[in-house]
Amino acid sequence: MTRLPHAEVPLTVQFHDCDPLGVVWHGHYARYFEHARSALMDGIDYGYEQMRDSGYAWPVIDLHVRYVKAIRLGQKLRVRAALQEWEHRLKIGYELRDADSGEKLARGHTIQVAVTVPEFEMQLVSPAILAHKLGLAP
Amino acid sequence: MTRLPHAEVPLTVQFHDCDPLGVVWHGHYARYFEHARSALMDGIDYGYEQMRDSGYAWPVIDLHVRYVKAIRLGQKLRVRAALQEWEHRLKIGYELRDADSGEKLARGHTIQVAVTVPEFEMQLVSPAILAHKLGLAP
Amino acid sequence: MTRLPHAEVPLTVQFHDCDPLGVVWHGHYARYFEHARSALMDGIDYGYEQMRDSGYAWPVIDLHVRYVKAIRLGQKLRVRAALQEWEHRLKIGYELRDADSGEKLARGHTIQVAVTVPEFEMQLVSPAILAHKLGLAP
Amino acid sequence: MTRLPHAEVPLTVQFHDCDPLGVVWHGHYARYFEHARSALMDGIDYGYEQMRDSGYAWPVIDLHVRYVKAIRLGQKLRVRAALQEWEHRLKIGYELRDADSGEKLARGHTIQVAVTVPEFEMQLVSPAILAHKLGLAP
Repeated sequence: MTRLPHAEVPLTVQFHDCDPLGVVWHGHYARYFEHARSALMDGIDYGYEQMRDSGYAWPVIDLHVRYVKAIRLGQKLRVRAALQEWEHRLKIGYELRDADSGEKLARGHTIQVAVTVPEFEMQLVSPAILAHKLGLAP
Repeated sequence: MTRLPHAEVPLTVQFHDCDPLGVVWHGHYARYFEHARSALMDGIDYGYEQMRDSGYAWPVIDLHVRYVKAIRLGQKLRVRAALQEWEHRLKIGYELRDADSGEKLARGHTIQVAVTVPEFEMQLVSPAILAHKLGLAP
Repeated sequence: MTRLPHAEVPLTVQFHDCDPLGVVWHGHYARYFEHARSALMDGIDYGYEQMRDSGYAWPVIDLHVRYVKAIRLGQKLRVRAALQEWEHRLKIGYELRDADSGEKLARGHTIQVAVTVPEFEMQLVSPAILAHKLGLAP
Repeated sequence: MTRLPHAEVPLTVQFHDCDPLGVVWHGHYARYFEHARSALMDGIDYGYEQMRDSGYAWPVIDLHVRYVKAIRLGQKLRVRAALQEWEHRLKIGYELRDADSGEKLARGHTIQVAVTVPEFEMQLVSPAILAHKLGLAP
């Protein structure tokens, strides 16, 4: 059985990420997730440029974030993205942890589907290029 | 039976909301939701200032967004927030619709819990002030 | 003498605009300016869509913001954009005022130049379409 | 003569930084600057936490950005912040360069002044703590 790919990036919480309560505003986690997702997709050579060249875009159709513990200004994080499903849609799971203690701070997922560009026609099965990039097909 | 409150705000998609695909970047929906949530909470006289004065903050502990149809630059929207649960946590549901056609573009929810300020101690039952603001208690 | 166009939009400061000091984070003023600039350009029928159809993009090449007084959560604003130069470049001036008191809170400018799309070739003179849209040429 | 401190951080342009033209939206440069400024201030042990502990906040009162060349999705950058003035105000200059070629992509500055917390009373001379942190006073 082939193991699905994952990636991890380090991040430091910036002043502009934090709200009047002094913690990261909840909407910014989508940016943190995207840093890790982008590293994951670059790792299988299927980043935004390769997607476009393949004739597809992969819009996010579902986002879920579970906030476990408030994240503070200056805190150092590790954001992990792991591919969970790929055959019909691209489901990626995320974990945010404190870089020092390893404590879990948040988790979540995104779901993306392939659409043709420029027609934006949704594909019910992931195009062959994805299995190829994952090393699961020739 | 008392009907729970809701609120609706109009929004126009700005250039800075849109990504290289020419549509609203998925992470920005959390800002759109917050516009409507803020109108909802102001409507029951329990906005951020009143929350702080009441000794509580209400951090978001769960966010879900379901993207139904891509939203384009310049599109005019109506964002609706409706209170769904309040006894143990504040659950608010959202709908984004095209302002002209009424077509549904996205839906989602946020869940917030009360924490004491400045101790950040989580409350398992919503503090009495919330029922009072909702007109459900003296 | 023809008077150059201007536009004004109302805005209410949102929670996600504010930083740990409880005031609008300085980088977000560029979004506030863009709301007013977008209204100004729509007003002369030369918004982003019309720009693209005309074969040009107008990237911002210079931004200046002078912060006069801190802007607080929930504060209601009026943002004014006024065209100041157009022959060789598009220079727009901005003023942010408190909607109630009229007190000036910030001022600034952006400078944009026309570039051909998709070549991104910079134009040293604004293309004829701009004077036409401004009603200064047939 | 003592040399004033500077700092440099690496950054990779993310999808959420880019606009419908496929380049970094001009307002996001303020975030890039802040990454480098934060590294600079941490380097002299006068980051946001130390500022607050010293009884002062340092709001930005002036921002200027000059955009030299459009920055593209995925591009790797070096952002440099260098202290330029400190006696009456904190003036920091910035340079954004392509990490590979060294080509200059943007420059700019921010000006900050000390205000007492929580009174927000502006100081016309930088408080002694700054000279101390800079190693220019005992």
